[in-house]
Amino acid sequence: MNDTTETLEHRLSGIHAALVKDETELVDEVVADLEPAEIALLLESLPPADRIRLWERVPAEVDGEVLLHVHDEVRSTLLDDMDHAEIVAAATGLDTTDLADLFEDLPQLVAEDMLRSMDEQQRQRLQETLAFEEDSAGRLMRTDTIGVRADVSLETVHRFLRWKETVPDNTDALMVVDRNGLVVGILPLARLVSHDTDMAVADLMDSDVDFISMGMKSRDVATLFQTHDLSSAPVVDDEGRLLGRIVIEDIVDVIRDNSEQALMNMAGLDEEEDLFAPVLPSARRRAVWLGINLLTAFLAAGVIGRFEAALDQIVALAVLMPIVASMGGIAGSQTLTLAIRGMALGQISRTNSQWLMRKEIGIAILNGVGWALVVALLAILWFKSLGIGVIIAIALVINMLAAGIAGIAIPLVLKRMGIDPALSGSVVLTTVTDVVGFMAFLGLATLFLL
Amino acid sequence: MNDTTETLEHRLSGIHAALVKDETELVDEVVADLEPAEIALLLESLPPADRIRLWERVPAEVDGEVLLHVHDEVRSTLLDDMDHAEIVAAATGLDTTDLADLFEDLPQLVAEDMLRSMDEQQRQRLQETLAFEEDSAGRLMRTDTIGVRADVSLETVHRFLRWKETVPDNTDALMVVDRNGLVVGILPLARLVSHDTDMAVADLMDSDVDFISMGMKSRDVATLFQTHDLSSAPVVDDEGRLLGRIVIEDIVDVIRDNSEQALMNMAGLDEEEDLFAPVLPSARRRAVWLGINLLTAFLAAGVIGRFEAALDQIVALAVLMPIVASMGGIAGSQTLTLAIRGMALGQISRTNSQWLMRKEIGIAILNGVGWALVVALLAILWFKSLGIGVIIAIALVINMLAAGIAGIAIPLVLKRMGIDPALSGSVVLTTVTDVVGFMAFLGLATLFLL
Repeated sequence: MNDTTETLEHRLSGIHAALVKDETELVDEVVADLEPAEIALLLESLPPADRIRLWERVPAEVDGEVLLHVHDEVRSTLLDDMDHAEIVAAATGLDTTDLADLFEDLPQLVAEDMLRSMDEQQRQRLQETLAFEEDSAGRLMRTDTIGVRADVSLETVHRFLRWKETVPDNTDALMVVDRNGLVVGILPLARLVSHDTDMAVADLMDSDVDFISMGMKSRDVATLFQTHDLSSAPVVDDEGRLLGRIVIEDIVDVIRDNSEQALMNMAGLDEEEDLFAPVLPSARRRAVWLGINLLTAFLAAGVIGRFEAALDQIVALAVLMPIVASMGGIAGSQTLTLAIRGMALGQISRTNSQWLMRKEIGIAILNGVGWALVVALLAILWFKSLGIGVIIAIALVINMLAAGIAGIAIPLVLKRMGIDPALSGSVVLTTVTDVVGFMAFLGLATLFLL
Repeated sequence: MNDTTETLEHRLSGIHAALVKDETELVDEVVADLEPAEIALLLESLPPADRIRLWERVPAEVDGEVLLHVHDEVRSTLLDDMDHAEIVAAATGLDTTDLADLFEDLPQLVAEDMLRSMDEQQRQRLQETLAFEEDSAGRLMRTDTIGVRADVSLETVHRFLRWKETVPDNTDALMVVDRNGLVVGILPLARLVSHDTDMAVADLMDSDVDFISMGMKSRDVATLFQTHDLSSAPVVDDEGRLLGRIVIEDIVDVIRDNSEQALMNMAGLDEEEDLFAPVLPSARRRAVWLGINLLTAFLAAGVIGRFEAALDQIVALAVLMPIVASMGGIAGSQTLTLAIRGMALGQISRTNSQWLMRKEIGIAILNGVGWALVVALLAILWFKSLGIGVIIAIALVINMLAAGIAGIAIPLVLKRMGIDPALSGSVVLTTVTDVVGFMAFLGLATLFLL
């Protein structure tokens, strides 16, 4: 029985303390009790020096599995610590799919050496897998599929499986193929075990199969698994011949990676970023995003600069102007987030985007007018000027309208341009709400208050 | 063979057009070809009037399944359109777990009627399920588990399953229980089919089982499934007696819901929000978030207001001040996002948070100084004033330092207070970077330039 109640955070504190105190026996004890994915999480949770100390205590036989579970950036810090022979040993135990995952991160000399040490069949399989695009079904599939023929009896299938003695991990169905290797159905193990053995596979198999073509994007495969409630599905080539299978256990990783990517991209970060990366490379990577945002900040400053006369005469404008920009930014980011979620689920198309736009305009008018009255009242009380109150109210409504429209339009346009809306949507949106906000408020003030 | 290449967006456009043109036959044809989860996605993708038209074309026998797949808010719009008898019919086909999911959303009269129409056993099961907390393993588990005894032979198991004729959906393993109903192991179907039938269950079962206690949080169950690479696991009561099973197919939903929640919460939205909700309720819900942000905007304005003298004398300060606030906000949100991801994965604890803080301070100094030089140069060129350049550079470094520290400290403090950092982290952070940014820049200007 495993104790499933202890959280990772507890283990983390424990192992971190043990590492610091150099209590290697305690470390070994904890590590021996962990799954590779848990060791991976622990390694990712440690600062570089402690991470390497833990890595050196991880038993060589799980090295490969652990490397598969860490993010790319952490993986390279771990590989840096291994010598040639250790890497080869770690990679040797992996199946083709997993090895392909790791292969492109290996130092060139190690990779060449590994290729040389493989037999012809292994090498060919690896090269076939590597030929598929990353994030495609071909890279995601497992090749250890069991295929059976439709015209045999269940008894024959049972005998065949007993003769094999083991069934590959995460097998919940056998693939039924014809004489030419074309997939004609699938036979779930649950059906196999609950029917008389003299039935034929053909009578029992599920022939209404969701085929996955080898080039299908992982993201689309994940959607298919979710909407069709699949546990596994055959991957086929262009002729419909069986190449492998994708199982839901691997889909879970795709879903987690995709959601992590959306979250990280919205802050201009890479989802492979190591939480404990050294300062210098981290700073360099984040600098790019800061630079892009500096451009938009200077754009906004440029807009403000055009109204120096107004600011010079009425200091209240400078005090209040960030409110107009900020409310637009918040309203816009709400609309943008809803639109990004809708687009990720495939729910926004040309046919309904106009309805959405009208809805957001309606919301912008209601919330714009409502909060504009509050802001106007406070501004009038603060600065004893009716004019400023009226102008900030109008500017606020204008900016919230712009935010609502931009929140729907920006992700649609970015997507059509082939740019991920989650990555750049918020910068573009902030630019719009800053520029419109400052221009409306200071422009109206220039027109009517000077 | 199913065509898996047509995307949801294409189908959506097609069905939307057909609905608008009242081509009910075409609509029926498309709907007949879809899985309940796909119908649910389509319904969610339609404006209210079209959604109801499509809902009325959905065959009654899948109504229950579709209701399970839509978000809460959409569900209530669909339930509103159904009469008493339709709701009862839709709910009747569901198993206890699914019914419990739906039950709390049913109109009270319908719920009472349903309880009356159930037999004693059904009613008791439903009440037991409802007694578990939402988002707990007890609510997530399926109760249609097949239990077998350890001392029987595989042959007996085979005979038993053939006698039952069907195995519940998504069964990939049988639970092995002793005479008192205590779980002693699990028997994967893959092992059952690949071994000689005269073996005993006890010799073949996996007794190193990850038990899930009925009160465990869904989120923790999902983590366990991912780190231990599980496909299914038994749920047990406090004594270790078998209550049910959780399968990876349901974990996928938990993972998706959690990631959706993080994304939506960061914009102050509820993950159950209907993309096509009517304007009025949507506006009301979002108004709260805007109001909270208005408070922080006024706080920032209040800070600016304290430096009216400086703004009155040097108009360049008003032009440049948003740059200081904005760069701090961006830098802080990068740190915050990394911290929120790390906390969601359980990777941040007391032991490593200091290391992280030092790292973020390092990055803030590097990027702060780097971009401060750029901003200073541009400011000097723009306003021909060395003083302003020096002051904006110092203010920028100060604000980026504050952003880095706040980006780590805020989520840690919020979590200790039991508040979801994804929900309120960004408001608190923006308040800090706005206040510090304006205060540093305008304060330094007041001290040294007036």
